[in-house]
Amino acid sequence: MDFSQLLKSRIDLINAKLDEYLVEHDNYQKKIYQAMRYSIFAGGKRLRPVMTLAACDIVGGDERLSLPFGCAVEMIHTYSLIHDDLPVMDNDDYRRGKPTNHKVFGQAMAVLAGDALLNKAFEIMAAEAVSGRCDIKRAVKAMLVIAEASGTEGMIGGQVVDIESGNYGINDLHKMEYMHLHKTGALIAASIEAGAIIGGAGEKELESLALFGRNVGLAFQIKDDLLDVEGDQQLLGKPVGSDENNKKSTFVTLMGIEKSKQRIEELTQEAIDSLGIFHDKGWFLIQLARELVGRNK
Amino acid sequence: MDFSQLLKSRIDLINAKLDEYLVEHDNYQKKIYQAMRYSIFAGGKRLRPVMTLAACDIVGGDERLSLPFGCAVEMIHTYSLIHDDLPVMDNDDYRRGKPTNHKVFGQAMAVLAGDALLNKAFEIMAAEAVSGRCDIKRAVKAMLVIAEASGTEGMIGGQVVDIESGNYGINDLHKMEYMHLHKTGALIAASIEAGAIIGGAGEKELESLALFGRNVGLAFQIKDDLLDVEGDQQLLGKPVGSDENNKKSTFVTLMGIEKSKQRIEELTQEAIDSLGIFHDKGWFLIQLARELVGRNK
Repeated sequence: MDFSQLLKSRIDLINAKLDEYLVEHDNYQKKIYQAMRYSIFAGGKRLRPVMTLAACDIVGGDERLSLPFGCAVEMIHTYSLIHDDLPVMDNDDYRRGKPTNHKVFGQAMAVLAGDALLNKAFEIMAAEAVSGRCDIKRAVKAMLVIAEASGTEGMIGGQVVDIESGNYGINDLHKMEYMHLHKTGALIAASIEAGAIIGGAGEKELESLALFGRNVGLAFQIKDDLLDVEGDQQLLGKPVGSDENNKKSTFVTLMGIEKSKQRIEELTQEAIDSLGIFHDKGWFLIQLARELVGRNK
Repeated sequence: MDFSQLLKSRIDLINAKLDEYLVEHDNYQKKIYQAMRYSIFAGGKRLRPVMTLAACDIVGGDERLSLPFGCAVEMIHTYSLIHDDLPVMDNDDYRRGKPTNHKVFGQAMAVLAGDALLNKAFEIMAAEAVSGRCDIKRAVKAMLVIAEASGTEGMIGGQVVDIESGNYGINDLHKMEYMHLHKTGALIAASIEAGAIIGGAGEKELESLALFGRNVGLAFQIKDDLLDVEGDQQLLGKPVGSDENNKKSTFVTLMGIEKSKQRIEELTQEAIDSLGIFHDKGWFLIQLARELVGRNK
């Protein structure tokens, strides 16, 4: 299989499993499942769970065993977007070309749908650990890595810095990198680490993959900031210039366009280099990193 | 030790452990930990973790092993209160006599503090499972029971019915019981089940304790509705009559005061009866159930 075939087959696996986890209930819970499904199936790239599967495979594991953990990360990522878009947070009306969750289901339901996705992620991982399908010790380690990456020392910690900083509040690059390494990088790195843990990675393999994840995560975020300035509104599915309208500091406002592009190149190269220990087996993740840097949406 | 001594020593254990889990960080995360601590230490009765410890003990386990799971349940309970109080949900300004989280920290931080407490609960449980301090299989089972009870098939499911029903929208007792059994009862039952699982309970012991939890949880909620009509504002720390002001149906609006009191008695008796298999060892939970029914705040 070439890259795009393998990518597509992994995305198909992930979508089918997410669909299974979020079967719409025909009872009092109908509405909350609709709200959860709306954002889960709103066109996400499935970057994180794809990385989970790839990392499990690269260390010699059966990637299907890592699928529940990848889906859990995707749910955590999606809950964070729903809550971020709320009027009291970033107040965004559109995401990926579609109205945001609270525009469709109302703010109360959007808060609950976010809560429900975060909770469901841990429900899925705990059920998987109980099931005995994969090694129970690996399962709880993967769960812990994901929980730490999404919590106060990870994603939420980054989000707090973002919220607390206010308009153009982040004016040094160190704080900006800290914010994004936590807000975005931590969960991307955890999605890879979790897959590697389920696949039975050794210490060194785990470190290399985590480093890859952090660098790709940061490059991904700088690219996001660039697209907000240079991107095509149609392709992005959201207005360009929203960072400027929201008076947000970004990598681009701090470093300028050229230096931002250069930093993306450096980070991508570092990410690719860290996969050296896997030799030829690194090809899929390397290609994925290159696609992320080259994307136009 | 008599009841109040044992209750106090358990509450002290729980508070010390919660304090340890939420040590205030002197860095970018300072504010979120302040917000989390504010609601965790806002005078909660610690009913749920006390039940976790008692259930672990009643089946012959070392109750200190169940402490992390009790603390996790308390964090989940607290996050649900923070989100419930938000303007887009119940819009409450006071809880237990103190301004609600969003009145002190702002709505964005309150959303994040709730998210962070839910996440932290699973972080703590996953770390406990990894640690090897208690049996890993019991740890993941306890985690699953708690996750299911707090999710769409539990607490969030009940909350959805509450939100969806709107003003005086719940007009049959069946739906009201469904709502409260999920919104309140499920997590109370899970706090007991989790303790029993960590303590190594057998199937029958687990069933009896879960039944006790569900009945106590429902009695607790009807008592809450009664206090909103008959209670003393000073003792409650929130305005009485808030259900009426919020145009909410309650057990009392549906059944009247006398029948509500009668139902509380029945449920408490059923709860107590279900502990029969534990003989004398049931005394603490029985006394706790009686205190909950007799409380005036």
